[in-house]
Amino acid sequence: MNTKAIVLFGHGARDVRWREPFDRLASLWKAQHPSTPVELAFLELMEPNLEQAIASQVAAGATEVVVVPVFFGQGGHLRNDFPVLLSACREKFPGVTLSATPAVGDDLAVLQAIIDFGARAL
Amino acid sequence: MNTKAIVLFGHGARDVRWREPFDRLASLWKAQHPSTPVELAFLELMEPNLEQAIASQVAAGATEVVVVPVFFGQGGHLRNDFPVLLSACREKFPGVTLSATPAVGDDLAVLQAIIDFGARAL
Repeated sequence: MNTKAIVLFGHGARDVRWREPFDRLASLWKAQHPSTPVELAFLELMEPNLEQAIASQVAAGATEVVVVPVFFGQGGHLRNDFPVLLSACREKFPGVTLSATPAVGDDLAVLQAIIDFGARAL
Repeated sequence: MNTKAIVLFGHGARDVRWREPFDRLASLWKAQHPSTPVELAFLELMEPNLEQAIASQVAAGATEVVVVPVFFGQGGHLRNDFPVLLSACREKFPGVTLSATPAVGDDLAVLQAIIDFGARAL
């Protein structure tokens, strides 16, 4: 059986309160998509890192993991660091199908929600 | 007459392609809210900075500027750096009403759009 999991991958920050929206994302996901396990992962300064998050999903039985970069822009982190990390995870977990979506900032509906938020603030 | 403008304030990055979603945000705003001028501004590594963006709106006639932090989390940048910048701008432009919204990552509709993006990727 193919068991899919999702990893929401963010930048990370020194201030622990920075992760609040990420924790909310994980809660929303769990409430709305309970059959697909979700895990947060961070590029730096916060844990778990990508490999740890994927390892945890694999240990729980995932055979396919989709990584969603919760970044606005495709800058150096996503163009350079992220492919290296993902490639290392593919080597580490050869039996698992790992894929990644574009950054959430590439999604028109996400951008539209930001526009609508700004419009409500006026 | 009270003339309102909006500034979409992002982190900035070395890779110029990082700003693509910000440019799209500005285009969407212009298309959907043409009566409210919009300007991008960046904390670091990209221009204009916050003061330059506000100066440009003030020069164009804005008497009120709403700054929308296009950040996911309220970390050190928004809790420490941003209030200092905003306060410096208030001193620099005493005749202008400057306000700021919470980070866009605090908005449930933005988070929901991210969840929906992830769900479509599965």
